[in-house]
Amino acid sequence: MYEGALQDLIDELGRLPGVGPKSAQRLAFHLLASDPADVRRLADALLEVKLRARFCVVCGNVSEEEQCRICRDPRRDEALICVVEEPKDVVAIERTREFKGRYHVLGGAISPLDGIGPEQLRVRELIARLNDGTVTEIILAMDPNIEGDATAAYLTRMLVPMGLTVTRLASGLPVGGDLEYADEVTLGRAFAGRRSAQ
Amino acid sequence: MYEGALQDLIDELGRLPGVGPKSAQRLAFHLLASDPADVRRLADALLEVKLRARFCVVCGNVSEEEQCRICRDPRRDEALICVVEEPKDVVAIERTREFKGRYHVLGGAISPLDGIGPEQLRVRELIARLNDGTVTEIILAMDPNIEGDATAAYLTRMLVPMGLTVTRLASGLPVGGDLEYADEVTLGRAFAGRRSAQ
Repeated sequence: MYEGALQDLIDELGRLPGVGPKSAQRLAFHLLASDPADVRRLADALLEVKLRARFCVVCGNVSEEEQCRICRDPRRDEALICVVEEPKDVVAIERTREFKGRYHVLGGAISPLDGIGPEQLRVRELIARLNDGTVTEIILAMDPNIEGDATAAYLTRMLVPMGLTVTRLASGLPVGGDLEYADEVTLGRAFAGRRSAQ
Repeated sequence: MYEGALQDLIDELGRLPGVGPKSAQRLAFHLLASDPADVRRLADALLEVKLRARFCVVCGNVSEEEQCRICRDPRRDEALICVVEEPKDVVAIERTREFKGRYHVLGGAISPLDGIGPEQLRVRELIARLNDGTVTEIILAMDPNIEGDATAAYLTRMLVPMGLTVTRLASGLPVGGDLEYADEVTLGRAFAGRRSAQ
């Protein structure tokens, strides 16, 4: 409908999740009218993220090194692992400053309807981290919804027989919600009041 | 909050209109997980649009040449100019296939609250196109809202004394709406039933 480059940009923006045809058009016109330096910064950021960002080989968090900042930090308690669904949950928990252990990012939650079982998550990598006996407590910080509960139940059944202390975040998180939207205080209290998962 | 490149991308995406922090994060994670070729295509489209897309020197529409496709097309009626607010309105009208004349894109509508008067629009360029007497009719196709009506009223007062036939799109467009959202049939009928602007 538009000539060449503008239509190409509208098409590419329209492929992004949550960006419909009208939004794509609006964004494209915004970019067309923007300072070229701003557009170049966005294009560079896109290319850089593919070049530089990857996943930590230990915990599965987003990282620019083989191991992420938290896994590399010797001050973080190695005996304590907080298991989360996604990298954004790590960011949400870090903001509370309540937690001084390490993380393990599953990459999602068990959801049979979406074809996601334990094999599609980084569960095997979690078990491998428990072999040398350094870890003594696992905090399950899944989202407080059906998939999160199913994932926590599955991990509890697997981890408790291994002699680990397994806890879940205290209730206080709104049920049916999304962990990353919890405010710092609520999430911090949920950490402090965590209970045994059995 | 995230490391380097990912946070940079979230920041850049968050600068786009209508993209809040959560959307920016969601888009960034989507891009992080996307095929690198897809991300490169988006980055290229961003850079290309700034390199190639510009505004037609005659009508102000988006173009990749000095003059846009429509202004270069000798089959389009030079005696008839349809004045619109934005390039996207040209696309909407072209879709109806009702109009065979030329366009003039004002780049907005008169809106004193936003500090936009006739001087901020391409009104002078419109007058310049009328000097040689080729143009005999002007169709005012502003959005059917307050700003569009004010702009049409202003242009009517200026153009009628110049001896031009000045028409506005027929009512039928939903009042208070946005021209670009009209369906083809409604917009086509509005064209066919255009009336004198006085």
